[in-house]
Amino acid sequence: MTRDHRLVIGVDFGTLSGRAVVVRVSDGEEIGSAEHAYPHAVMERELTAGDGRRLPPEWALQDPADYIEVLRTAVPAALANAGADPADVVGIGTDFTACTMVPALADGTPLCEVAEYRNRPHAYAKLWKHHAAQEQADRINALAHRQQQPWIARYGGLISSEWEFAKGLQMLEEDPVLYGAMDRWVEAADWIVWQLCGTYVRNACTAGYKGIYQEGRYPSPEFLRALNPDFEGFVRDKLDQPIAQLGQAAGRLTEEAAAWTGLPAGIAVAVGNVDAHVTAPAAGAVEPGQMVAIMGTSTCHVMNGDELAEVPGMCGVVDGGIVEGFWGFEAGQSGVGDIFAWYVENQVPGEYARAAAEAGQGLHEYLTELAAQQEVGQHGLIALDWHSGNRSTLVDHELSGLLIGQTLTTQPEDIYRALLESTAFGTRVIIEAFEAAGVPVTEFVVAGGLLKNSFLMQMYADVTRLPLSTIASSQGPALGSAIHAAVAVGAYPDVRAAAAALGRRTVAAYTPDEEAADRYDELYAEYLRLHDYFGRGGNDVMHRLKAIRREVSHRVMGSTPEKGSAAVVERGGTDETH
Amino acid sequence: MTRDHRLVIGVDFGTLSGRAVVVRVSDGEEIGSAEHAYPHAVMERELTAGDGRRLPPEWALQDPADYIEVLRTAVPAALANAGADPADVVGIGTDFTACTMVPALADGTPLCEVAEYRNRPHAYAKLWKHHAAQEQADRINALAHRQQQPWIARYGGLISSEWEFAKGLQMLEEDPVLYGAMDRWVEAADWIVWQLCGTYVRNACTAGYKGIYQEGRYPSPEFLRALNPDFEGFVRDKLDQPIAQLGQAAGRLTEEAAAWTGLPAGIAVAVGNVDAHVTAPAAGAVEPGQMVAIMGTSTCHVMNGDELAEVPGMCGVVDGGIVEGFWGFEAGQSGVGDIFAWYVENQVPGEYARAAAEAGQGLHEYLTELAAQQEVGQHGLIALDWHSGNRSTLVDHELSGLLIGQTLTTQPEDIYRALLESTAFGTRVIIEAFEAAGVPVTEFVVAGGLLKNSFLMQMYADVTRLPLSTIASSQGPALGSAIHAAVAVGAYPDVRAAAAALGRRTVAAYTPDEEAADRYDELYAEYLRLHDYFGRGGNDVMHRLKAIRREVSHRVMGSTPEKGSAAVVERGGTDETH
Repeated sequence: MTRDHRLVIGVDFGTLSGRAVVVRVSDGEEIGSAEHAYPHAVMERELTAGDGRRLPPEWALQDPADYIEVLRTAVPAALANAGADPADVVGIGTDFTACTMVPALADGTPLCEVAEYRNRPHAYAKLWKHHAAQEQADRINALAHRQQQPWIARYGGLISSEWEFAKGLQMLEEDPVLYGAMDRWVEAADWIVWQLCGTYVRNACTAGYKGIYQEGRYPSPEFLRALNPDFEGFVRDKLDQPIAQLGQAAGRLTEEAAAWTGLPAGIAVAVGNVDAHVTAPAAGAVEPGQMVAIMGTSTCHVMNGDELAEVPGMCGVVDGGIVEGFWGFEAGQSGVGDIFAWYVENQVPGEYARAAAEAGQGLHEYLTELAAQQEVGQHGLIALDWHSGNRSTLVDHELSGLLIGQTLTTQPEDIYRALLESTAFGTRVIIEAFEAAGVPVTEFVVAGGLLKNSFLMQMYADVTRLPLSTIASSQGPALGSAIHAAVAVGAYPDVRAAAAALGRRTVAAYTPDEEAADRYDELYAEYLRLHDYFGRGGNDVMHRLKAIRREVSHRVMGSTPEKGSAAVVERGGTDETH
Repeated sequence: MTRDHRLVIGVDFGTLSGRAVVVRVSDGEEIGSAEHAYPHAVMERELTAGDGRRLPPEWALQDPADYIEVLRTAVPAALANAGADPADVVGIGTDFTACTMVPALADGTPLCEVAEYRNRPHAYAKLWKHHAAQEQADRINALAHRQQQPWIARYGGLISSEWEFAKGLQMLEEDPVLYGAMDRWVEAADWIVWQLCGTYVRNACTAGYKGIYQEGRYPSPEFLRALNPDFEGFVRDKLDQPIAQLGQAAGRLTEEAAAWTGLPAGIAVAVGNVDAHVTAPAAGAVEPGQMVAIMGTSTCHVMNGDELAEVPGMCGVVDGGIVEGFWGFEAGQSGVGDIFAWYVENQVPGEYARAAAEAGQGLHEYLTELAAQQEVGQHGLIALDWHSGNRSTLVDHELSGLLIGQTLTTQPEDIYRALLESTAFGTRVIIEAFEAAGVPVTEFVVAGGLLKNSFLMQMYADVTRLPLSTIASSQGPALGSAIHAAVAVGAYPDVRAAAAALGRRTVAAYTPDEEAADRYDELYAEYLRLHDYFGRGGNDVMHRLKAIRREVSHRVMGSTPEKGSAAVVERGGTDETH
């Protein structure tokens, strides 16, 4: 039997950079990788790729040319790092942040590359975390509920300002001329595939989770007209495109893309995908009951199910949204690692920084070590993990953080631990919502940057009372993309089989400690009571404080509050890599 | 008319040091002062004045010899600092922390000065913040309510573990032999006067506020017997002593005390008093409606009234408790400056410390300056000021801190400002309780270390909508003691007249800003809703978290929770100087 030398490439397009990995088709071995940061990163304050004009609040743009740069640099660098013969590469797969939207001409040219549009903000890619279409999202939600549209339940009751329709409607209403000039409103996940193989196909994942595509159709022209008469043709004229299943080949690598990447022209290019969703196969965790949590600044939860279920507060459920043949569920916590980072940057005294430096540790590591010396409940604190709002299951971005129980002896590590715990409790709320909706969770699989904190992992196992498995790869999304490439090539019959062969995780790396679990139950009961009181209308103080804050800010800046700004909701969006 | 050269000395005995001031009788001019730190400070962990043995949790002892050291050093130093002729001094007055108790022989010798008792902790003075008699306080309160004792309403419904009876009962039950050897259980405020003039008289202030002396009597022998059969004679055998009004002369300076102090023997020695209460005359604010707040680590509020009123949650109301002829009301906030100090020590990053140092400022000053740049409500936060429990009006030491509204953009100065505001809101709750009980507050007079923060002072004026006056002297208590000496000498007919002549404040140094007051009203409404929810039984999570914390601590230390420890309450005690 001859050795199988075939290789596939996976490329993960994150928020600030792209990463390429070279993977052996036969066994999933990652033999090389490279990363390239986007030259324009995220444009949140100024249009640095154009004339540098100021951007309004809540905007987040990217320049699609930066994505091409990743193909030009990170892919060849990964091949070199692997010492691989490009001739051995048989396919390439990609994943992207979502919902990130590129406005394009009919040939795929981004509008921002048309010279006359270079300084128009709406000509650029709107990154997932562009939150300036909230007013449009509010109107879409209000209308959907008024008309009792059946699809709204597939999104836990609310669609997000981050998604395709809200961002598209914002463009129409704020720059109608540019909207008119736009031929295609393209998910970046699909746009990059289009660039690689010259064929534009929509992937089932983003079409379902971000594009309100359910049961073979989008929202109707009548619905769109009711939002804005000029929006009636949005689906037909800008959005609709053949939809392909994950793991299929979208086409073959063009000569142009071969020149960018150094790969052989004609190799298979997999259908696009989302960073979080592609990680499930990379962990070999695509069976019903295996909840994969990509834990970084935020956490995205993805899980397959045999049957459709409408889980209150989930981000979405999509047929084939993760793996063809299953219903794919998605949920999320909008703040996790970024809450810890906020705390470390803003609330930890200099002496801790010095002690950590002396010990050769980072502050997170140092605080974790101190926190780990405590018994459960010893700090006497409960926190709510809503500093960045609550995505699942409350779907309310107007919520904010809470800390209760401070005394004059409370130490920084006490609060740090309480914040860690609060995110574990938030995860448990999500798991319980799934279970209550008849979707049992039997294994909790962690990917993402936070899995390196073993104390946190043990805490999650204890709090959820689930075996906690950890992904083996440190390049989860890129490996997941490579797995999809291997399927697109035909090396495996489907993603499920490829995930079994190439995906890897340490099964039950952490198991619940029963005594700790019992003690966490006591704290969780307190968390839940505060969660429901502040999150379900017992006391809307968080909403009122944000309204006051907005009112003050607007007064200070000499303007009036924006229409609809008091009813901001927060939804969806995935970005597992940061 | 010859110039009046007469001088009086005031000595303030604080928690960590004593301060002496030399004051001109004619106009209240402070012509010199000096301070002396107690060599043994506060013994909280080890009996350093004895054999260094470990002390149990919640203990706080002092060595009375340290008080004599203040007479020996600070008084002569103040005279030297003033360049005064000791022969001009005609009287001396003192004030003390309370309730601080000295166990003594019949001649006033503290038990700890008897060689065989030197290593027995119960032989030392129990400082106001000795909190280890909580079990005894709980039993006293329970019995008082069961028997419907009328005096319990005079203390807002609860007497404190800090006070004379609880501490005395603890001594009986933990060291009965020493209790048997004790002839006198003496307020330090009276003990120091006894040392100066050789006469033991009890002052009306501590007898009333700390000694449960109301309507001319103490709790009955039957009541005491029901607590413990051996406690029946506590009042008769250990406590009872003639009671003198504030401003009277207790006696004349002995030869021995004259030798300590360098003062002429035979000058008048004023009746003892409490640091907080003596400050009202020093501010010239002894009329009904003038609430004097001594704002330091904690805040003590004292105010005179024409009529008896029972204000829910006050610390106490005593006939002549502040000035003879009025009913003296006392209330308090158990954590104020110490909450700010806790925050600065534990929750502010090194870069702030560096920036403050570069600006030549302390961190409090630096954070205040940043906080002052904000509009009311701009930080979007509400805090509850219960890190050290709530003294008035909830009288619950099991409460703890709360912070709500944090986002990922919350800065250290935002939280600092929210903490400042929380203490102002706590003060407003107290003022409203007095007003609801028919005791109007018309002027808010501030003494103590925090008055130097002008931003905080303006905030208090805005939040309370009261004119805020500030004491002129930086040695409020010592000046107040000197004023009492001037009355004891006969230079003024009574304390009220002396306060008018010698006390000084800047009247309405701060007046409410109506626009800010309106905006604070919005935040106060939120504070009050959280206050009532967490403080009045809506959600007893703070109690439960403390119970869990105690249970964990005891388990970790391998012992079981102490009897009654789940029902700790916190009351009273004054210490304006720290």
